[in-house]
Amino acid sequence: MRVFKIMETISRPFRAYPNLSKVLVVFAVSGGGYVAYAQANSDSNLISSAPDVERKKVVVLGTGWAGTSFLRNLKSSSYDVHVLSPRNYFAFTPLLPSVTCGTVEPRSIVEPIRNIVRKKKIGFQFTEAECLKIDAENKKVYCRSHLKDGENEFVVDYDYLVISVGADVNTFNTPGVKEHCHFLKEVEDAQKIRRTVLECFEKACLPTVSDEDKERILHFAIVGGGPTGVEFAAELHDYVNDDLVKLYPGVKDKVKITLLEAGNHILSMFDKRITEFAEEKFRREGINVKTGSMVVKVDKNEITTKEMKTGEESKIPYGMALWSTGIGTRPFVKDFMNQIGQANRRVLATDEWLRVEGCDKVYALGDCATINQRKVVEDIFAIFSKADKDKSGTLTVKEWKEVLNDICERYPQVELYLKSKQMSNIVDLLKDSKGADATESVELNIEDFKTALSKVDSQMKMLPATAQVAAQEGAYLANCFNRMEKCEKNPEGPLRFRGEGRHRFHPFRYKHLGQFAPLGGEQTAAQLPVLPGDGVSIGYSSQWLWYSVYASKQVSWRNRGMVISDWLRRFIFGRDSSQI
Amino acid sequence: MRVFKIMETISRPFRAYPNLSKVLVVFAVSGGGYVAYAQANSDSNLISSAPDVERKKVVVLGTGWAGTSFLRNLKSSSYDVHVLSPRNYFAFTPLLPSVTCGTVEPRSIVEPIRNIVRKKKIGFQFTEAECLKIDAENKKVYCRSHLKDGENEFVVDYDYLVISVGADVNTFNTPGVKEHCHFLKEVEDAQKIRRTVLECFEKACLPTVSDEDKERILHFAIVGGGPTGVEFAAELHDYVNDDLVKLYPGVKDKVKITLLEAGNHILSMFDKRITEFAEEKFRREGINVKTGSMVVKVDKNEITTKEMKTGEESKIPYGMALWSTGIGTRPFVKDFMNQIGQANRRVLATDEWLRVEGCDKVYALGDCATINQRKVVEDIFAIFSKADKDKSGTLTVKEWKEVLNDICERYPQVELYLKSKQMSNIVDLLKDSKGADATESVELNIEDFKTALSKVDSQMKMLPATAQVAAQEGAYLANCFNRMEKCEKNPEGPLRFRGEGRHRFHPFRYKHLGQFAPLGGEQTAAQLPVLPGDGVSIGYSSQWLWYSVYASKQVSWRNRGMVISDWLRRFIFGRDSSQI
Repeated sequence: MRVFKIMETISRPFRAYPNLSKVLVVFAVSGGGYVAYAQANSDSNLISSAPDVERKKVVVLGTGWAGTSFLRNLKSSSYDVHVLSPRNYFAFTPLLPSVTCGTVEPRSIVEPIRNIVRKKKIGFQFTEAECLKIDAENKKVYCRSHLKDGENEFVVDYDYLVISVGADVNTFNTPGVKEHCHFLKEVEDAQKIRRTVLECFEKACLPTVSDEDKERILHFAIVGGGPTGVEFAAELHDYVNDDLVKLYPGVKDKVKITLLEAGNHILSMFDKRITEFAEEKFRREGINVKTGSMVVKVDKNEITTKEMKTGEESKIPYGMALWSTGIGTRPFVKDFMNQIGQANRRVLATDEWLRVEGCDKVYALGDCATINQRKVVEDIFAIFSKADKDKSGTLTVKEWKEVLNDICERYPQVELYLKSKQMSNIVDLLKDSKGADATESVELNIEDFKTALSKVDSQMKMLPATAQVAAQEGAYLANCFNRMEKCEKNPEGPLRFRGEGRHRFHPFRYKHLGQFAPLGGEQTAAQLPVLPGDGVSIGYSSQWLWYSVYASKQVSWRNRGMVISDWLRRFIFGRDSSQI
Repeated sequence: MRVFKIMETISRPFRAYPNLSKVLVVFAVSGGGYVAYAQANSDSNLISSAPDVERKKVVVLGTGWAGTSFLRNLKSSSYDVHVLSPRNYFAFTPLLPSVTCGTVEPRSIVEPIRNIVRKKKIGFQFTEAECLKIDAENKKVYCRSHLKDGENEFVVDYDYLVISVGADVNTFNTPGVKEHCHFLKEVEDAQKIRRTVLECFEKACLPTVSDEDKERILHFAIVGGGPTGVEFAAELHDYVNDDLVKLYPGVKDKVKITLLEAGNHILSMFDKRITEFAEEKFRREGINVKTGSMVVKVDKNEITTKEMKTGEESKIPYGMALWSTGIGTRPFVKDFMNQIGQANRRVLATDEWLRVEGCDKVYALGDCATINQRKVVEDIFAIFSKADKDKSGTLTVKEWKEVLNDICERYPQVELYLKSKQMSNIVDLLKDSKGADATESVELNIEDFKTALSKVDSQMKMLPATAQVAAQEGAYLANCFNRMEKCEKNPEGPLRFRGEGRHRFHPFRYKHLGQFAPLGGEQTAAQLPVLPGDGVSIGYSSQWLWYSVYASKQVSWRNRGMVISDWLRRFIFGRDSSQI
C-alpha cells in the first residue's frame, strides 16, 4: 500500500507527462527531494477550481515573456490569477527566426500557458480573449473573444492588474508596409514566412514566369539590420544553400538576399568587432547589405528606398519582404495612456517598482512599458535634507556615506556614474566637485551637493525591448507579489527621500546577461559580460554556446527536448521544403 | 586522391542529407554495394536540367500515393517526367488521423516530391499547378497555378499522361456539409481539425458561455464509421483523456464524442470480431456509437439525422463535425469523363493495364480510377475458338489446360471462382458443369464451355479506394514504363483472345496485404493475411505491429526518423495543446 502511495505522490508533478512518470519513477524514488516537492504541489486543480473568496484577484494581460515569467515565479497562494490573452501559449520568441526556415518547428518553441501554471499552488484561470479597454478607476478590464459570434464581449474585475501585452510592429507609417511586408513577432508570422519562401521558389519554377520575373520573385528583402533581420538573413541564406538549391537547380542562380538598414551599420547595438565580422561574412556569402538606405514606400512588387546621404530614391523589385525595424504601441494601450495622462509618451511609463504612473495597483512590464527612472536633480533638496541628519546645513562624509547605499539603490544612475568615471568611492565624487584637495573631513553645503550630483542623470538609460528585460521584470514583480504581506510589515526597499520610512520593495534592477547574434553557417556572435576580456566571442564555439544557452532557457522539459531533437533532425536530415 | 573519389561517390545518394552522409560514410564504406548504386545514380541534376529531345514526355497529374509510387519506381531514362500538382509534396495519408491530435506532426508525414525524385536518373520537372482540362485528342493538359496573379494558365503537351489526382470528398449532396463539416483528406485538413478541437475547449472556457452551450461546443460528431472516422474518434478520445482534461479541468465532464454511421455496424469492411471489439471498446470508453442513422442536413450548430429504420428525424447539437463517409470525383475528371464517353460512370474506367478506356496513352490510377475488369461472358466465343486449336468444335482437357493460365491471367475472376469453390483444378470445373462423371477424357462443346464459365463473373470485385491499391498501381505502371521497349519486342502478357499474339504486359493484379484499424489506448485491430488463422489480431501487440509497419512504409529515411521521434516525443511529453 505504502509503495503505491509514494509512487502516486511522486508521479503527481509529472501529470502532464503520464508516460514520463512511468519511465522516471525509478529515478525519482532514489531522489527523496521529489517526495516533498510533490506533496507541496498536490491538489493544484482543486485549488484552481474552488477559488477562495478572500484572495486578491490578479488579472494578467498577455502570455509573452513578461506575463509568463510573472506566472512562473508567482508562488504565493493568496492570489487568484486570471490570465487574458489572444493566444493560449507562451512562445520562445528568440527562436522565431529559426522557425522561418524550419530549423526548429513552431510547436517546439511554444508551451500552453495552462501547462506552465498547472502545477502551481495558485488559483488560476485562463481566457482566450483580447483586451479592449482598461477602466483603472473602477478596476475593470473590457475584453473580447474572437472564438465566438454573438455575445463575445465581457468585463473582468481586478484587484491588481498586470499589463504585459508586448508591442505591435512599428511601420513608421511607411505606406504599403502593413499590406505587403511580413513581420516576425508571432509564431504564425514565422509559419507564413516559411510558406512564402517556398511559394517564391515554386512560383519561379512556373512555365509562365519570365527570367526577369524569376529574379524578382527570388529576391528576398529584409528591412532592418537589427538582430532579428540579421538572423533571418543568415537562416534564409543557409536554408537556400544547404537545402533549396539542390531541389530547385534550375533557379538557384537567381536567388538574392538583401538587407536594408537606414543606419550606417547592421547590428549597431553590438560591439564594433561583431558588426564588422557580420558585414564581412555577409559580403563574402553574397548577402547584399545596403546600409544608409531608408525604405520610404512598399508596393506589391517594389520597395522604394531613399539614400540617407544623397536623398536619392531608387526602386528595388522583390519577391518577399520582411519588416523588422522596431516596435510600436498596441492601440488599446495607447487609449489607456491617453486616459491616464500619458498621451505624449511612446510606451506606458512606470516607476522603478513597475507600477504604472498615475494609476493604482496597475503594473506594466515588458515591451509595452518603460521605467521612468526618477532624476536625482528633481529630488536634490529632499535627498540633502534627509542625509543631513543633524540639520547642520552641511553634509559630512560620514552622513554622506550613511545614505549613499540608499541613494545608489533609489537612483541607480549614481552608481553607474561612479563606475563610468572609474570612481571607487564617495570621496572621488567630492574631489570631482570640490577640487583635488577634498579629503575625508570635507563638508558639503547644498550647492556643493548639487554640483557633485549634477551630472549623474546623464547616466540614465532606457532598457532595451528584449525578452531578457521582460523576463526579469516578470520575475521581479512575482517576487514582490510573493512577499507583499511580509514587506508591508518589514519594508526592505531604500529610504523614501520624499516621504517617511522605507520603500516596501527594492526597486527593479536589470542585470544584462549578454546577447547573441547568429550569423549562419554554424557561426554566432556573442557579447556576454561573463566572457573574458571585452565579452565578445565570434565563431563556431559561440554557436555551441548559443545552442546550450537557448536549450537551457526553454520554459519546460518538453520544449527543451523538442528543440534539441529538432536541431538533431535538421543536422541529420536537413530542413524540409514541403509547402505546409 | 582515390579515397576522396570513393568518398564523394558514396556520398552522392545522400546529397539530400549532407550531414547524414558524413555520419554514415564509415558504414557505407563497408558496404560495397553502395558504390555501384551511387554511380548508377550520378549526374541526375545534369540530366534533369538538360532534357534530351528524343525522350518521351510523361505528364503525371498528382503527388498522392499513386503518382508518387509511379515516380519512385520509374527507372528508365527514356522519359522526361513532368509532374503537375497543387501540392509540392507527398503526404503519408494513413497517419492523418494521428496529425489531427498531434500524435504525429504534419511535417513528419510529408516529403517534397522533388526530394523523392532528385536521386533518380529520369528527366524531371515539377510545377505547382492544378489541372483544369485534359485534351486527349491533341495530347494537351490545361493547367492553372494559384501562386500567381495575371497570366497563370498554361498548357503542357504529353506523350503519355498519368492521371493520379485522387478523389474529392463525397457529401452525397447533404445540405450544409461543405460549409460546416471538417474533412480529413489533406494535411491542411488535419491541422485545421487540431486547431478547431482546441478552439472548442478554449471557447467552452469563456465566461460568456452558458452551461448548455458548453455541452454543445464540446460535442464532437464524426459522420462515417469507416477506418478514418473510427481512428479519429479513438485519437480524439485519447487526446482528451490523456492530455486535455488535465489542462481544462473545469469542462472535462462536458466532453462527448459521437460516431454516426448509416449502416448497422462500424468498420463494416473488417472481420466481424474486429467490429464487435471496436463497438464494445468505444461503448466502454464512453464514445457514443450511433449506427443506422443517416445525416440528412448539417446546420451551424446542429446535425439532423434520420433513423434508417423508422425514418424518424432528430437534431444533435455539436461543436465540431468531421465528415468521413466516402469519396467523390474531382470536377475536371468528371468533365474528362463526359468528353470520352464515360459520363455515366462514377470514376474513370481503365482496362486491366490501367489505360483509360476510350483514350490513347492515357493512364489513370489510384482513387480517381477503377479497373473495368473484362467479363468472361463477353469473350466466351473468342476464348473458345482460341483454345480450340484443332478447330474441332470441342475442347479437350489438354487444350483446355494449355490456355488455362492465360485465361486465369486475363480473367482473374476465373481463378477466384476456382478458389471460392475450393476447386483445385480444371477437372473440378468440368465436373461442376458436366456432372460428377466428368473425367480427364471428356470434351466440351461451346454450350458446355458457357455453362462451366457462366458463374465466374460473379467473382469480379472492385478494388477499394485505399493507399495500398494506389501504391501498387503506381509501382505496376512504372514497371511497365521501365520495360516498354523490351516488352514491345517480347510481349510477356497473356494471350490476346480477341486479337493476335500476346498482350505486351501482364495485367495489373492487386495483392492485399491487410489493413489496420487503430482503436486508441495503444490498441489496434489488424486483419492481415500473413497472420496465422483468420488473420485477425486485436490489442496491444497489433499496435506495435502497426508502429513497425507504418514506420517501415515511410517514403524516406527523413520521414521515418521524424515519425518515430514524434512517437517518442508524444510518449515522453504527451501531446501539445497550443493553438497553432
